[in-house]
Amino acid sequence: MSELDKMISGEIYDPSDELLSKMRANARKITAEYNRTSREQKSERFKLLNDLFGHISGDIKIEPTFNCDYGKNINIGDNFYVNFGCVILDCAEVKIGDNCFIGPQVGIYTACHPIDPIERNSGVEFAKPVTIGNNCWIGGHATINPGVVLGDNVVVASGSVVTKSFPNNVIVGGNPARVIKEI
Amino acid sequence: MSELDKMISGEIYDPSDELLSKMRANARKITAEYNRTSREQKSERFKLLNDLFGHISGDIKIEPTFNCDYGKNINIGDNFYVNFGCVILDCAEVKIGDNCFIGPQVGIYTACHPIDPIERNSGVEFAKPVTIGNNCWIGGHATINPGVVLGDNVVVASGSVVTKSFPNNVIVGGNPARVIKEI
Amino acid sequence: MSELDKMISGEIYDPSDELLSKMRANARKITAEYNRTSREQKSERFKLLNDLFGHISGDIKIEPTFNCDYGKNINIGDNFYVNFGCVILDCAEVKIGDNCFIGPQVGIYTACHPIDPIERNSGVEFAKPVTIGNNCWIGGHATINPGVVLGDNVVVASGSVVTKSFPNNVIVGGNPARVIKEI
Repeated sequence: MSELDKMISGEIYDPSDELLSKMRANARKITAEYNRTSREQKSERFKLLNDLFGHISGDIKIEPTFNCDYGKNINIGDNFYVNFGCVILDCAEVKIGDNCFIGPQVGIYTACHPIDPIERNSGVEFAKPVTIGNNCWIGGHATINPGVVLGDNVVVASGSVVTKSFPNNVIVGGNPARVIKEI
Repeated sequence: MSELDKMISGEIYDPSDELLSKMRANARKITAEYNRTSREQKSERFKLLNDLFGHISGDIKIEPTFNCDYGKNINIGDNFYVNFGCVILDCAEVKIGDNCFIGPQVGIYTACHPIDPIERNSGVEFAKPVTIGNNCWIGGHATINPGVVLGDNVVVASGSVVTKSFPNNVIVGGNPARVIKEI
Repeated sequence: MSELDKMISGEIYDPSDELLSKMRANARKITAEYNRTSREQKSERFKLLNDLFGHISGDIKIEPTFNCDYGKNINIGDNFYVNFGCVILDCAEVKIGDNCFIGPQVGIYTACHPIDPIERNSGVEFAKPVTIGNNCWIGGHATINPGVVLGDNVVVASGSVVTKSFPNNVIVGGNPARVIKEI
Protein backbone atom coordinates (compact mmCIF):
# COMPACT_ATOMS: atom_id res chain seq x y z
CA MET A 1 0.00 0.00 0.00
CA SER A 2 1.19 3.53 -0.74
CA GLU A 3 1.21 6.10 2.09
CA LEU A 4 -1.71 7.80 0.29
CA ASP A 5 -3.70 4.54 0.31
CA LYS A 6 -2.91 4.04 4.00
CA MET A 7 -3.97 7.61 4.81
CA ILE A 8 -7.27 7.34 2.97
CA SER A 9 -8.09 3.97 4.50
CA GLY A 10 -7.45 5.03 8.11
CA GLU A 11 -4.16 3.18 8.61
CA ILE A 12 -1.08 4.65 10.28
CA TYR A 13 0.86 6.53 7.57
CA ASP A 14 3.94 8.71 7.16
CA PRO A 15 2.97 12.27 6.13
CA SER A 16 6.57 13.03 5.08
CA ASP A 17 6.02 10.73 2.07
CA GLU A 18 7.01 12.44 -1.19
CA LEU A 19 3.64 12.18 -2.92
CA LEU A 20 1.71 13.37 0.15
CA SER A 21 4.11 16.32 0.63
CA LYS A 22 3.64 17.26 -3.00
CA MET A 23 -0.15 17.06 -2.70
CA ARG A 24 -0.13 19.30 0.39
CA ALA A 25 2.19 21.80 -1.31
CA ASN A 26 -0.17 21.93 -4.28
CA ALA A 27 -3.20 22.51 -2.01
CA ARG A 28 -1.42 25.32 -0.17
CA LYS A 29 -0.50 26.95 -3.49
CA ILE A 30 -4.12 26.87 -4.64
CA THR A 31 -5.58 28.07 -1.33
CA ALA A 32 -3.03 30.90 -1.10
CA GLU A 33 -4.06 32.01 -4.59
CA TYR A 34 -7.76 31.60 -3.74
CA ASN A 35 -7.35 33.67 -0.57
CA ARG A 36 -5.98 36.55 -2.65
CA THR A 37 -8.93 36.62 -5.07
CA SER A 38 -11.85 39.02 -4.77
CA ARG A 39 -15.53 38.16 -4.81
CA GLU A 40 -15.80 39.63 -8.33
CA GLN A 41 -13.40 36.99 -9.74
CA LYS A 42 -16.14 34.37 -9.89
CA SER A 43 -14.74 32.22 -12.68
CA GLU A 44 -11.18 32.26 -11.24
CA ARG A 45 -12.58 31.25 -7.86
CA PHE A 46 -14.59 28.40 -9.35
CA LYS A 47 -11.61 27.18 -11.37
CA LEU A 48 -9.36 27.19 -8.29
CA LEU A 49 -11.91 25.33 -6.13
CA ASN A 50 -12.48 22.85 -8.94
CA ASP A 51 -8.71 22.20 -9.09
CA LEU A 52 -8.50 22.02 -5.28
CA PHE A 53 -11.36 19.73 -4.30
CA GLY A 54 -12.13 16.14 -5.22
CA HIS A 55 -15.69 16.96 -6.25
CA ILE A 56 -17.74 20.14 -6.32
CA SER A 57 -20.85 21.24 -8.14
CA GLY A 58 -21.60 24.58 -9.76
CA ASP A 59 -23.05 26.35 -6.77
CA ILE A 60 -20.23 26.87 -4.28
CA LYS A 61 -19.17 29.96 -2.33
CA ILE A 62 -16.27 30.05 0.12
CA GLU A 63 -15.25 33.25 1.86
CA PRO A 64 -11.48 33.61 2.31
CA THR A 65 -9.47 32.83 4.32
CA PHE A 66 -10.00 29.11 3.69
CA ASN A 67 -7.43 26.43 4.39
CA CYS A 68 -7.31 22.67 3.92
CA ASP A 69 -4.67 19.95 3.87
CA TYR A 70 -5.11 18.13 0.55
CA GLY A 71 -8.38 19.34 -0.96
CA LYS A 72 -8.63 16.23 -3.13
CA ASN A 73 -10.23 14.36 -0.20
CA ILE A 74 -13.07 16.90 0.06
CA ASN A 75 -16.22 15.95 -1.85
CA ILE A 76 -19.07 18.42 -1.77
CA GLY A 77 -22.68 18.36 -2.98
CA ASP A 78 -24.65 21.14 -4.57
CA ASN A 79 -25.33 24.58 -3.03
CA PHE A 80 -22.41 24.86 -0.60
CA TYR A 81 -21.50 27.93 1.43
CA VAL A 82 -18.54 28.44 3.77
CA ASN A 83 -18.03 31.64 5.73
CA PHE A 84 -14.75 33.38 6.78
CA GLY A 85 -11.75 31.64 8.30
CA CYS A 86 -12.69 27.96 8.06
CA VAL A 87 -10.20 25.09 8.17
CA ILE A 88 -10.82 21.57 6.83
CA LEU A 89 -8.11 19.00 7.59
CA ASP A 90 -8.90 16.40 4.94
CA CYS A 91 -6.36 13.64 5.47
CA ALA A 92 -9.28 11.23 5.31
CA GLU A 93 -12.32 11.99 3.17
CA VAL A 94 -14.62 14.88 4.12
CA LYS A 95 -17.92 14.21 2.38
CA ILE A 96 -20.54 16.95 2.55
CA GLY A 97 -24.06 16.59 1.11
CA ASP A 98 -26.23 19.08 -0.78
CA ASN A 99 -27.35 22.42 0.67
CA CYS A 100 -24.83 22.70 3.51
CA PHE A 101 -23.93 26.02 5.13
CA ILE A 102 -20.77 26.34 7.22
CA GLY A 103 -20.48 29.35 9.55
CA PRO A 104 -17.32 31.40 10.10
CA GLN A 105 -14.25 30.14 12.03
CA VAL A 106 -15.37 26.48 11.84
CA GLY A 107 -12.87 23.61 12.02
CA ILE A 108 -13.56 20.22 10.42
CA TYR A 109 -10.76 17.83 11.35
CA THR A 110 -9.98 14.29 10.20
CA ALA A 111 -6.33 14.31 11.34
CA CYS A 112 -5.28 12.24 14.37
CA HIS A 113 -1.95 11.73 16.09
CA PRO A 114 -1.18 8.66 18.21
CA ILE A 115 -1.84 9.20 21.93
CA ASP A 116 1.42 7.43 22.83
CA PRO A 117 4.08 10.18 22.78
CA ILE A 118 6.87 7.95 21.48
CA GLU A 119 4.77 6.80 18.55
CA ARG A 120 3.48 10.36 18.00
CA ASN A 121 6.98 11.83 17.95
CA SER A 122 8.01 9.37 15.23
CA GLY A 123 5.84 11.52 12.94
CA VAL A 124 3.25 8.96 11.89
CA GLU A 125 -0.39 9.95 11.77
CA PHE A 126 -3.79 8.47 10.99
CA ALA A 127 -7.10 9.92 9.95
CA LYS A 128 -10.82 9.26 10.25
CA PRO A 129 -13.34 10.48 7.66
CA VAL A 130 -16.04 13.05 8.39
CA THR A 131 -19.43 12.79 6.71
CA ILE A 132 -22.01 15.56 6.78
CA GLY A 133 -25.46 14.82 5.30
CA ASN A 134 -27.73 16.99 3.20
CA ASN A 135 -29.22 20.29 4.40
CA CYS A 136 -26.89 20.75 7.37
CA TRP A 137 -26.04 24.06 8.99
CA ILE A 138 -22.80 24.13 10.99
CA GLY A 139 -22.78 27.23 13.23
CA GLY A 140 -19.79 29.54 13.57
CA HIS A 141 -16.80 28.52 15.72
CA ALA A 142 -17.94 24.87 15.75
CA THR A 143 -15.43 22.01 15.80
CA ILE A 144 -16.16 18.72 14.01
CA ASN A 145 -13.89 15.91 15.20
CA PRO A 146 -12.40 13.00 13.21
CA GLY A 147 -14.84 10.15 12.54
CA VAL A 148 -18.03 12.17 13.03
CA VAL A 149 -21.03 11.33 10.83
CA LEU A 150 -23.90 13.83 10.79
CA GLY A 151 -27.24 12.86 9.25
CA ASP A 152 -29.49 15.05 7.10
CA ASN A 153 -30.98 18.34 8.33
CA VAL A 154 -28.61 18.57 11.32
CA VAL A 155 -28.01 21.99 12.87
CA VAL A 156 -24.82 22.36 14.90
CA ALA A 157 -25.05 25.30 17.31
CA SER A 158 -22.27 27.89 17.24
CA GLY A 159 -19.27 27.03 19.38
CA SER A 160 -20.16 23.31 19.59
CA VAL A 161 -17.46 20.66 19.81
CA VAL A 162 -18.87 17.64 17.98
CA THR A 163 -17.10 14.53 19.28
CA LYS A 164 -19.54 11.82 18.12
CA SER A 165 -22.05 11.12 15.36
CA PHE A 166 -25.67 12.28 15.27
CA PRO A 167 -28.68 11.09 13.23
CA ASN A 168 -31.02 13.08 10.97
CA ASN A 169 -33.15 16.00 12.15
CA VAL A 170 -31.47 17.17 15.34
CA ILE A 171 -30.05 20.40 16.70
CA VAL A 172 -26.87 19.69 18.67
CA GLY A 173 -24.85 22.03 20.85
CA GLY A 174 -22.34 22.32 23.67
CA ASN A 175 -18.89 20.91 24.47
CA PRO A 176 -19.13 17.99 23.96
CA ALA A 177 -22.16 18.47 21.70
CA ARG A 178 -25.42 16.82 22.76
CA VAL A 179 -28.89 16.82 21.19
CA ILE A 180 -30.63 20.07 22.18
CA LYS A 181 -33.82 19.51 20.19
CA GLU A 182 -35.33 17.26 17.55
CA ILE A 183 -36.51 19.03 14.42
CA MET B 1 -40.13 47.14 2.61
CA SER B 2 -36.76 46.73 0.92
CA GLU B 3 -34.69 43.61 1.66
CA LEU B 4 -32.30 45.89 3.57
CA ASP B 5 -35.15 47.20 5.74
CA LYS B 6 -36.33 43.63 6.37
CA MET B 7 -32.80 42.53 7.30
CA ILE B 8 -32.26 45.38 9.75
CA SER B 9 -35.65 44.91 11.38
CA GLY B 10 -35.26 41.17 11.98
CA GLU B 11 -37.67 39.97 9.26
CA ILE B 12 -36.98 37.11 6.86
CA TYR B 13 -35.05 38.58 3.89
CA ASP B 14 -33.35 37.50 0.69
CA PRO B 15 -29.57 38.06 0.89
CA SER B 16 -29.25 37.66 -2.92
CA ASP B 17 -30.94 41.08 -3.26
CA GLU B 18 -28.92 43.40 -5.51
CA LEU B 19 -28.38 46.19 -2.97
CA LEU B 20 -27.39 43.77 -0.19
CA SER B 21 -24.97 41.94 -2.51
CA LYS B 22 -23.41 45.26 -3.48
CA MET B 23 -23.06 46.29 0.17
CA ARG B 24 -21.35 42.99 1.05
CA ALA B 25 -19.04 43.28 -1.96
CA ASN B 26 -18.06 46.77 -0.83
CA ALA B 27 -17.36 45.59 2.74
CA ARG B 28 -15.18 42.72 1.47
CA LYS B 29 -13.24 45.15 -0.73
CA ILE B 30 -12.55 47.45 2.23
CA THR B 31 -11.66 44.64 4.68
CA ALA B 32 -9.34 43.02 2.10
CA GLU B 33 -7.57 46.36 1.71
CA TYR B 34 -7.51 46.90 5.49
CA ASN B 35 -6.05 43.43 6.04
CA ARG B 36 -3.14 44.30 3.75
CA THR B 37 -2.23 47.51 5.61
CA SER B 38 0.52 47.73 8.19
CA ARG B 39 0.31 49.18 11.68
CA GLU B 40 2.32 52.23 10.54
CA GLN B 41 -0.44 53.22 8.06
CA LYS B 42 -2.52 54.81 10.82
CA SER B 43 -4.42 57.33 8.71
CA GLU B 44 -5.17 54.80 5.92
CA ARG B 45 -6.46 52.37 8.52
CA PHE B 46 -8.68 54.99 10.13
CA LYS B 47 -10.02 56.09 6.76
CA LEU B 48 -10.86 52.49 5.78
CA LEU B 49 -12.59 51.74 9.08
CA ASN B 50 -14.49 55.00 8.85
CA ASP B 51 -15.68 54.00 5.37
CA LEU B 52 -16.48 50.47 6.53
CA PHE B 53 -18.42 50.98 9.76
CA GLY B 54 -21.66 52.80 10.50
CA HIS B 55 -20.14 54.79 13.35
CA ILE B 56 -16.70 54.91 14.94
CA SER B 57 -14.85 57.41 17.06
CA GLY B 58 -11.25 58.48 16.88
CA ASP B 59 -9.72 55.85 19.11
CA ILE B 60 -10.05 52.52 17.33
CA LYS B 61 -7.51 49.75 16.73
CA ILE B 62 -8.26 46.49 14.90
CA GLU B 63 -5.56 43.91 14.28
CA PRO B 64 -5.89 42.18 10.91
CA THR B 65 -7.27 39.79 9.83
CA PHE B 66 -10.69 41.29 10.46
CA ASN B 67 -13.85 40.32 8.58
CA CYS B 68 -17.45 41.46 8.66
CA ASP B 69 -20.52 41.16 6.45
CA TYR B 70 -21.71 44.72 5.85
CA GLY B 71 -19.78 46.99 8.22
CA LYS B 72 -22.44 49.68 7.99
CA ASN B 73 -24.45 47.89 10.69
CA ILE B 74 -21.57 48.10 13.18
CA ASN B 75 -21.71 51.11 15.52
CA ILE B 76 -18.86 51.50 17.96
CA GLY B 77 -18.15 53.81 20.88
CA ASP B 78 -14.89 55.40 21.89
CA ASN B 79 -11.66 53.52 22.74
CA PHE B 80 -12.23 50.24 20.87
CA TYR B 81 -9.69 47.46 20.46
CA VAL B 82 -10.01 44.21 18.49
CA ASN B 83 -7.28 41.60 18.40
CA PHE B 84 -6.26 39.20 15.57
CA GLY B 85 -8.67 37.14 13.51
CA CYS B 86 -12.07 38.40 14.64
CA VAL B 87 -15.29 38.04 12.64
CA ILE B 88 -18.41 40.17 13.07
CA LEU B 89 -21.47 39.09 11.07
CA ASP B 90 -23.48 42.30 11.11
CA CYS B 91 -26.65 41.52 9.20
CA ALA B 92 -28.51 43.12 12.10
CA GLU B 93 -26.96 45.96 14.09
CA VAL B 94 -23.92 45.28 16.27
CA LYS B 95 -23.78 48.12 18.79
CA ILE B 96 -20.73 48.31 21.02
CA GLY B 97 -20.27 50.86 23.81
CA ASP B 98 -17.22 52.83 24.92
CA ASN B 99 -14.01 51.21 26.14
CA CYS B 100 -14.59 47.70 24.79
CA PHE B 101 -11.73 45.26 24.23
CA ILE B 102 -12.25 42.20 22.01
CA GLY B 103 -9.70 39.38 22.27
CA PRO B 104 -8.30 37.39 19.34
CA GLN B 105 -10.31 34.84 17.30
CA VAL B 106 -13.66 36.12 18.62
CA GLY B 107 -16.89 35.68 16.64
CA ILE B 108 -19.84 38.06 17.04
CA TYR B 109 -22.76 36.74 15.00
CA THR B 110 -26.16 38.25 14.19
CA ALA B 111 -26.89 35.96 11.21
CA CYS B 112 -29.54 33.24 11.52
CA HIS B 113 -30.83 30.66 9.08
CA PRO B 114 -34.27 29.04 9.43
CA ILE B 115 -34.21 25.72 11.33
CA ASP B 116 -36.59 24.15 8.79
CA PRO B 117 -34.32 22.78 6.04
CA ILE B 118 -36.74 23.47 3.19
CA GLU B 119 -37.08 27.11 4.20
CA ARG B 120 -33.31 27.35 4.87
CA ASN B 121 -32.43 25.92 1.45
CA SER B 122 -34.56 28.58 -0.23
CA GLY B 123 -31.78 30.98 0.74
CA VAL B 124 -33.71 33.31 3.01
CA GLU B 125 -32.15 34.45 6.28
CA PHE B 126 -32.95 36.60 9.28
CA ALA B 127 -30.85 38.38 11.85
CA LYS B 128 -30.95 39.49 15.48
CA PRO B 129 -28.95 42.46 16.78
CA VAL B 130 -26.13 42.19 19.31
CA THR B 131 -25.58 44.93 21.88
CA ILE B 132 -22.49 45.18 24.03
CA GLY B 133 -22.43 47.83 26.78
CA ASN B 134 -19.62 50.10 27.93
CA ASN B 135 -16.36 48.83 29.43
CA CYS B 136 -16.74 45.22 28.28
CA TRP B 137 -13.89 42.78 27.74
CA ILE B 138 -14.64 39.85 25.45
CA GLY B 139 -11.97 37.18 25.94
CA GLY B 140 -10.24 35.39 23.06
CA HIS B 141 -12.04 32.61 21.15
CA ALA B 142 -15.42 33.70 22.57
CA THR B 143 -18.62 33.37 20.52
CA ILE B 144 -21.44 35.92 20.89
CA ASN B 145 -24.72 34.63 19.47
CA PRO B 146 -27.50 36.55 17.65
CA GLY B 147 -29.78 38.53 19.95
CA VAL B 148 -27.38 38.75 22.89
CA VAL B 149 -27.38 41.95 24.98
CA LEU B 150 -24.49 42.46 27.39
CA GLY B 151 -24.66 45.19 30.04
CA ASP B 152 -21.83 47.48 31.15
CA ASN B 153 -18.57 46.18 32.65
CA VAL B 154 -19.20 42.60 31.49
CA VAL B 155 -16.19 40.30 31.18
CA VAL B 156 -16.66 37.28 28.89
CA ALA B 157 -14.11 34.55 29.68
CA SER B 158 -12.02 33.18 26.84
CA GLY B 159 -13.68 30.36 24.89
CA SER B 160 -17.18 31.21 26.15
CA VAL B 161 -20.22 30.63 23.98
CA VAL B 162 -22.66 33.40 24.93
CA THR B 163 -26.18 32.22 24.04
CA LYS B 164 -28.26 34.64 26.14
CA SER B 165 -28.12 38.16 27.57
CA PHE B 166 -26.39 39.23 30.80
CA PRO B 167 -26.77 42.34 32.97
CA ASN B 168 -24.10 44.81 34.15
CA ASN B 169 -21.09 43.87 36.28
CA VAL B 170 -20.70 40.13 35.73
CA ILE B 171 -17.99 37.76 34.58
CA VAL B 172 -19.49 35.03 32.40
CA GLY B 173 -17.87 31.87 31.08
CA GLY B 174 -18.42 28.37 29.73
CA ASN B 175 -20.47 26.78 26.95
CA PRO B 176 -23.20 27.90 27.26
CA ALA B 177 -21.91 30.91 29.22
CA ARG B 178 -23.15 31.33 32.80
CA VAL B 179 -22.34 33.94 35.46
CA ILE B 180 -19.06 32.96 37.13
CA LYS B 181 -18.78 35.98 39.42
CA GLU B 182 -20.34 39.36 40.11
CA ILE B 183 -17.92 42.29 39.91
CA MET C 1 11.82 48.80 36.33
CA SER C 2 11.15 49.33 32.63
CA GLU C 3 7.66 48.55 31.27
CA LEU C 4 9.22 45.54 29.52
CA ASP C 5 10.60 44.24 32.82
CA LYS C 6 7.22 44.76 34.49
CA MET C 7 5.44 42.94 31.65
CA ILE C 8 7.77 39.94 31.75
CA SER C 9 7.60 39.67 35.54
CA GLY C 10 3.80 39.74 35.74
CA GLU C 11 3.43 43.27 37.12
CA ILE C 12 0.90 45.82 35.90
CA TYR C 13 2.48 47.61 32.89
CA ASP C 14 1.64 50.21 30.28
CA PRO C 15 1.56 48.67 26.77
CA SER C 16 1.70 52.12 25.15
CA ASP C 17 5.35 52.33 26.27
CA GLU C 18 7.64 53.26 23.37
CA LEU C 19 9.88 50.19 23.51
CA LEU C 20 6.95 47.78 23.81
CA SER C 21 5.13 49.48 20.92
CA LYS C 22 8.27 49.18 18.80
CA MET C 23 8.64 45.49 19.68
CA ARG C 24 5.03 44.77 18.72
CA ALA C 25 5.40 46.71 15.46
CA ASN C 26 8.49 44.65 14.64
CA ALA C 27 6.68 41.37 15.38
CA ARG C 28 3.73 42.36 13.17
CA LYS C 29 6.13 43.26 10.35
CA ILE C 30 7.79 39.85 10.55
CA THR C 31 4.56 37.86 10.86
CA ALA C 32 3.00 39.78 7.94
CA GLU C 33 6.03 38.87 5.83
CA TYR C 34 5.97 35.26 7.09
CA ASN C 35 2.27 34.95 6.26
CA ARG C 36 3.01 35.91 2.65
CA THR C 37 5.72 33.25 2.17
CA SER C 38 5.07 29.90 0.51
CA ARG C 39 5.99 26.47 1.84
CA GLU C 40 8.82 26.25 -0.74
CA GLN C 41 10.61 29.25 0.84
CA LYS C 42 12.07 27.12 3.61
CA SER C 43 15.16 29.18 4.38
CA GLU C 44 13.24 32.51 4.31
CA ARG C 45 10.67 31.04 6.68
CA PHE C 46 13.33 29.78 9.07
CA LYS C 47 15.12 33.12 9.00
CA LEU C 48 11.91 35.02 9.77
CA LEU C 49 10.93 32.70 12.64
CA ASN C 50 14.46 32.91 14.00
CA ASP C 51 14.21 36.71 13.96
CA LEU C 52 10.71 36.62 15.47
CA PHE C 53 11.01 34.18 18.37
CA GLY C 54 13.19 34.22 21.48
CA HIS C 55 14.45 30.69 20.89
CA ILE C 56 13.78 28.05 18.25
CA SER C 57 15.59 24.97 17.08
CA GLY C 58 16.12 23.73 13.54
CA ASP C 59 12.97 21.68 13.18
CA ILE C 60 10.04 24.10 13.16
CA LYS C 61 7.02 24.34 10.85
CA ILE C 62 4.26 26.92 11.19
CA GLU C 63 1.41 27.11 8.71
CA PRO C 64 0.28 30.69 7.97
CA THR C 65 -1.67 32.60 9.09
CA PHE C 66 0.25 32.87 12.37
CA ASN C 67 0.09 35.85 14.71
CA CYS C 68 1.77 36.76 17.98
CA ASP C 69 2.29 39.88 20.07
CA TYR C 70 6.06 40.13 20.62
CA GLY C 71 7.58 36.84 19.46
CA LYS C 72 10.67 37.41 21.59
CA ASN C 73 8.84 35.96 24.61
CA ILE C 74 8.20 32.66 22.80
CA ASN C 75 10.79 29.96 23.47
CA ILE C 76 10.34 26.66 21.67
CA GLY C 77 12.05 23.29 21.83
CA ASP C 78 12.94 20.93 19.01
CA ASN C 79 10.46 19.45 16.50
CA PHE C 80 7.64 22.01 16.67
CA TYR C 81 4.59 22.09 14.42
CA VAL C 82 1.76 24.67 14.33
CA ASN C 83 -1.20 24.35 12.01
CA PHE C 84 -3.28 27.10 10.28
CA GLY C 85 -4.58 30.21 11.97
CA CYS C 86 -2.99 30.06 15.42
CA VAL C 87 -2.53 33.05 17.72
CA ILE C 88 -0.02 33.28 20.58
CA LEU C 89 -0.29 36.36 22.81
CA ASP C 90 3.17 36.36 24.36
CA CYS C 91 3.18 39.35 26.72
CA ALA C 92 4.61 36.97 29.33
CA GLU C 93 6.83 34.06 28.31
CA VAL C 94 5.35 31.16 26.35
CA LYS C 95 7.71 28.24 26.84
CA ILE C 96 7.06 25.12 24.79
CA GLY C 97 9.06 21.90 25.14
CA ASP C 98 10.34 19.45 22.51
CA ASN C 99 8.06 17.56 20.12
CA CYS C 100 4.94 19.69 20.51
CA PHE C 101 2.18 19.76 17.89
CA ILE C 102 -0.38 22.58 17.86
CA GLY C 103 -3.58 22.04 15.86
CA PRO C 104 -5.29 24.67 13.70
CA GLN C 105 -7.14 27.74 15.07
CA VAL C 106 -5.58 27.38 18.55
CA GLY C 107 -5.19 30.37 20.87
CA ILE C 108 -2.46 30.53 23.53
CA TYR C 109 -2.96 33.64 25.63
CA THR C 110 -0.83 35.23 28.36
CA ALA C 111 -2.49 38.67 28.19
CA CYS C 112 -4.76 39.82 31.03
CA HIS C 113 -6.71 43.01 31.60
CA PRO C 114 -7.78 44.16 35.07
CA ILE C 115 -11.33 43.05 36.02
CA ASP C 116 -12.08 46.49 37.46
CA PRO C 117 -13.37 48.56 34.52
CA ILE C 118 -11.88 51.85 35.67
CA GLU C 119 -8.42 50.31 36.00
CA ARG C 120 -8.88 48.38 32.72
CA ASN C 121 -9.90 51.51 30.81
CA SER C 122 -6.71 53.26 31.94
CA GLY C 123 -4.97 50.95 29.45
CA VAL C 124 -2.73 49.04 31.85
CA GLU C 125 -2.37 45.28 31.45
CA PHE C 126 -0.60 42.36 33.07
CA ALA C 127 0.40 38.92 31.85
CA LYS C 128 0.94 35.40 33.15
CA PRO C 129 3.34 32.94 31.48
CA VAL C 130 2.22 29.73 29.77
CA THR C 131 4.41 26.63 29.94
CA ILE C 132 3.83 23.55 27.80
CA GLY C 133 5.99 20.49 28.50
CA ASN C 134 7.59 18.02 26.08
CA ASN C 135 5.61 15.81 23.71
CA CYS C 136 2.33 17.71 24.00
CA TRP C 137 -0.42 17.73 21.37
CA ILE C 138 -2.82 20.68 21.54
CA GLY C 139 -5.93 19.86 19.48
CA GLY C 140 -7.50 22.29 17.04
CA HIS C 141 -9.63 25.21 18.28
CA ALA C 142 -8.26 24.82 21.82
CA THR C 143 -7.76 27.84 24.09
CA ILE C 144 -4.88 27.94 26.59
CA ASN C 145 -5.40 30.61 29.25
CA PRO C 146 -2.81 32.83 30.99
CA GLY C 147 -0.86 31.08 33.75
CA VAL C 148 -1.48 27.52 32.56
CA VAL C 149 1.33 24.98 33.00
CA LEU C 150 0.99 21.68 31.12
CA GLY C 151 3.26 18.77 31.97
CA ASP C 152 4.89 16.34 29.55
CA ASN C 153 2.89 14.11 27.16
CA VAL C 154 -0.33 16.09 27.67
CA VAL C 155 -3.01 15.84 24.98
CA VAL C 156 -5.53 18.70 24.89
CA ALA C 157 -8.73 17.66 23.07
CA SER C 158 -9.96 19.85 20.24
CA GLY C 159 -12.13 22.76 21.35
CA SER C 160 -10.94 22.61 24.98
CA VAL C 161 -10.70 25.73 27.08
CA VAL C 162 -7.76 25.14 29.42
CA THR C 163 -8.21 27.36 32.48
CA LYS C 164 -5.84 25.63 34.93
CA SER C 165 -2.64 23.59 34.98
CA PHE C 166 -2.37 19.83 34.42
CA PRO C 167 0.39 17.34 35.26
CA ASN C 168 2.20 14.85 32.97
CA ASN C 169 0.48 12.08 31.03
CA VAL C 170 -3.14 13.18 30.83
CA ILE C 171 -5.72 13.81 28.12
CA VAL C 172 -7.81 16.86 28.99
CA GLY C 173 -10.94 18.17 27.32
CA GLY C 174 -14.06 20.29 27.69
CA ASN C 175 -14.88 23.84 28.74
CA PRO C 176 -13.39 24.24 31.27
CA ALA C 177 -10.96 21.42 30.50
CA ARG C 178 -10.89 18.44 32.89
CA VAL C 179 -8.88 15.21 32.86
CA ILE C 180 -10.61 12.76 30.48
CA LYS C 181 -8.06 9.96 30.76
CA GLU C 182 -4.62 9.17 32.14
CA ILE C 183 -2.13 7.97 29.55
